[in-house]
Amino acid sequence: MSRTRQKLYEIIFEADTPTGKLFDVVLLFVILLSVALVMLESVPFIRQDYRTHLHILEWIITGIFTAEYFLRILIVRKPFQYIFSFYGIIDFLSVIPTYIGLFLVGSHSLVVIRILRMLRIFRILKLSRYTQAGRSLVRALWASREKISVFIFFVIVLVIVIGTVMYLIEGEANGFTSIPRGIYWAIVTLTTVGYGDISPQTSLGQFMASIVMIMGYAIIAVPTGIVTAEIINPSRRDNTQVCPQCLWHHHD
Amino acid sequence: MSRTRQKLYEIIFEADTPTGKLFDVVLLFVILLSVALVMLESVPFIRQDYRTHLHILEWIITGIFTAEYFLRILIVRKPFQYIFSFYGIIDFLSVIPTYIGLFLVGSHSLVVIRILRMLRIFRILKLSRYTQAGRSLVRALWASREKISVFIFFVIVLVIVIGTVMYLIEGEANGFTSIPRGIYWAIVTLTTVGYGDISPQTSLGQFMASIVMIMGYAIIAVPTGIVTAEIINPSRRDNTQVCPQCLWHHHD
Amino acid sequence: MSRTRQKLYEIIFEADTPTGKLFDVVLLFVILLSVALVMLESVPFIRQDYRTHLHILEWIITGIFTAEYFLRILIVRKPFQYIFSFYGIIDFLSVIPTYIGLFLVGSHSLVVIRILRMLRIFRILKLSRYTQAGRSLVRALWASREKISVFIFFVIVLVIVIGTVMYLIEGEANGFTSIPRGIYWAIVTLTTVGYGDISPQTSLGQFMASIVMIMGYAIIAVPTGIVTAEIINPSRRDNTQVCPQCLWHHHD
Amino acid sequence: MSRTRQKLYEIIFEADTPTGKLFDVVLLFVILLSVALVMLESVPFIRQDYRTHLHILEWIITGIFTAEYFLRILIVRKPFQYIFSFYGIIDFLSVIPTYIGLFLVGSHSLVVIRILRMLRIFRILKLSRYTQAGRSLVRALWASREKISVFIFFVIVLVIVIGTVMYLIEGEANGFTSIPRGIYWAIVTLTTVGYGDISPQTSLGQFMASIVMIMGYAIIAVPTGIVTAEIINPSRRDNTQVCPQCLWHHHD
Repeated sequence: MSRTRQKLYEIIFEADTPTGKLFDVVLLFVILLSVALVMLESVPFIRQDYRTHLHILEWIITGIFTAEYFLRILIVRKPFQYIFSFYGIIDFLSVIPTYIGLFLVGSHSLVVIRILRMLRIFRILKLSRYTQAGRSLVRALWASREKISVFIFFVIVLVIVIGTVMYLIEGEANGFTSIPRGIYWAIVTLTTVGYGDISPQTSLGQFMASIVMIMGYAIIAVPTGIVTAEIINPSRRDNTQVCPQCLWHHHD
Repeated sequence: MSRTRQKLYEIIFEADTPTGKLFDVVLLFVILLSVALVMLESVPFIRQDYRTHLHILEWIITGIFTAEYFLRILIVRKPFQYIFSFYGIIDFLSVIPTYIGLFLVGSHSLVVIRILRMLRIFRILKLSRYTQAGRSLVRALWASREKISVFIFFVIVLVIVIGTVMYLIEGEANGFTSIPRGIYWAIVTLTTVGYGDISPQTSLGQFMASIVMIMGYAIIAVPTGIVTAEIINPSRRDNTQVCPQCLWHHHD
Repeated sequence: MSRTRQKLYEIIFEADTPTGKLFDVVLLFVILLSVALVMLESVPFIRQDYRTHLHILEWIITGIFTAEYFLRILIVRKPFQYIFSFYGIIDFLSVIPTYIGLFLVGSHSLVVIRILRMLRIFRILKLSRYTQAGRSLVRALWASREKISVFIFFVIVLVIVIGTVMYLIEGEANGFTSIPRGIYWAIVTLTTVGYGDISPQTSLGQFMASIVMIMGYAIIAVPTGIVTAEIINPSRRDNTQVCPQCLWHHHD
Repeated sequence: MSRTRQKLYEIIFEADTPTGKLFDVVLLFVILLSVALVMLESVPFIRQDYRTHLHILEWIITGIFTAEYFLRILIVRKPFQYIFSFYGIIDFLSVIPTYIGLFLVGSHSLVVIRILRMLRIFRILKLSRYTQAGRSLVRALWASREKISVFIFFVIVLVIVIGTVMYLIEGEANGFTSIPRGIYWAIVTLTTVGYGDISPQTSLGQFMASIVMIMGYAIIAVPTGIVTAEIINPSRRDNTQVCPQCLWHHHD
């Protein structure tokens, strides 16, 4: 039986063999279907018209996921390590809401946690060169984490100051009903999102807003500069060939 | 006749000779006119007042395009290869809606497909150095396709999670009527477009939105960094001169 | 008299001498005042309350500018060359609307052309190192003009196609009253401005809009990449020192 | 006593010793609390329900800050230098509004100046490597101050011209009630914020707006390019190792 188990382990947990890859692709397809189902169910008129169909599909998918979950526990060598791993918890959380929904009305919407199972797509992509691209992006972001932290801290201080000033200038009559709301406006403006649900009405407020916007224009350049510099630089660090003339690694 | 055909071929299909270039420029002008016509016709008050004029112009242009289409088929050595080529299909699709419009009311608006004929402008530009600029841009985008794919996949997962969370937080009363609409809001916010047709109303929703916006601020740096790095780097790869001292191509 | 004329020429036309610089600074101050005046006059309640004051100030400034204009013509060696130069035409256009306003009601608002006189600020800045910064920016933009042209052409084609498709999807009932309006919406969306005066209402329209926004996200990286690459590269080209070992200019 | 004073000085003014660092962390926590308090107090329903609680907390924090302020004056060697230093003035301004509030109603909201005390966080961060990240960002911004100044000056001139033109095109009926408001709109559009509180209604206005938006698209690339170039370049200047072959510092 050990051999069957070993084979099943390769199919379910690994994606190196053709069968293992097929299993992951099929699983991903079911996950996508379940995510689409959650989305469709939230649309009012679809919920009304196809209630029974959605209900049945929902239970079929929950059944598949439950079977898969117990199969994983049975096959893996250290079941507890899997159960309390990141993917193990997600796998558990993606089936339990449907069962709870039988007893507790309203808990059903928690099923959306299934969306996180989509992260399994990285399992399949792991084999392709897409991971390398992803890893270099993550590396660039990770290498610039300190600069980005300082930058975000600075943006938060700035946004608190601006939000407070605008609250004092505009006042509650113009939609700036509190300092937190002023800060919300400052973030909406500085990030150039600009909903327009709150916008300055007084001349002084519009003048201040103009300054904030031009500042945001200059500030947006900073994270871009940080990340770009990190994407460009690491490729140099990887150059380990020493110039025989000057024995100096980073020739430039 | 072969010589006449050869000459006509050069004029119509190539843009190297002065006559060929002139033909392409005139054709481009007619295409631009036809596109402008489609646009003007969609404006209600122009449609009412100049119905006949637009109708006549429409048929003149369709006539020119039809004649050109048959001429191309007659002159080209392998007609079927042209007919089923990218440009051949566009040429066909840009004349047929007007004829169908005679029998089927409403099919007329399909004439907008003519806009795609504007791509012929690249034929003329091919001769100039603008193509080189365009090609280097396309090369930069193509070289970074993997990173951009990973990035866009990440953005899509992020947007689904955010959209679902906001749907649960804000609910249908505040415009987040379904998960797809929540995702639509998440995209509008993360890309810093910010229409304001849907915007968070609750304090918790506005707090979440603030985090999303600041994330979007940092995230927008990623594609910029990718493309910039690709535009800067390839010029180095083209340097094939070897430093005689260290026999190392990429000296930096 | 030739010496007085020479001296006045230096003061008025050049900014190298202390007096010449002082003249330019004073002139710039008057120009800024006249621009502020035009702005203030456009504000309804200021126009009503300070009509006479603004009127008097207006005529004083017009008087100064007229005197300066005739002085320039008298002093310059080749008057006609000045009159038909870029600055000469601006100087003329910045005084004439006030005089025409005496006879023709409504022509007064043309006085805003005075704003262009603010470009004289570059005269004073010419002496400082700010010009170098400005010149390097202009050089970077100029060097990347071909890539930017190709990019903008591509954006225009894209925007026409998107605008037309959205006009067909959303229709006149949802604010997309014509193709040009659809194109306007596409530009507002792709550039991430997002007014929200027109926004998609149908599900299909919102889905299309989502794709456009994510495209805009990736597209905005292109001009940034172009300009950044141009700002970084030229500094290398200026390096004319040849490595004595490999006699190769662009060592990297 | 001198030794006690020396020790207290180290605790309060320096952050090198563990006790000094603890003091700064506790102080920072109190500052964050006081900032949160100011925010909460601005929210209407919290202000009504917890008026007394907030009042007491307010006075406790003011008490702590006052004690700390006098302690600093007593302990520092040159008290006047501290009092008139940047942090000294902020420390004073962060306690005085509460006391004035006893006599003058309404002056209380000035207490928000306390937010600036959050800058003390940099004192603690000074010890960590985050300062290096922050300093390199500030250096990059400082090194590009001339280019950014020229850029912002250019944007301001552009925005005045666009604002005036749009005021003339759209007029007061469409929300462009004055030139300053037109300029406000131009800034909102060029920075891609796009509130939508003012948006062009006429066809000509929308056409002009489209051009402004595409311009803004290209313009946003400039500050990004400037800052990115400055972040990438300085690391090279720091390389002081000379290539022994060519005795040329900046080898690339």
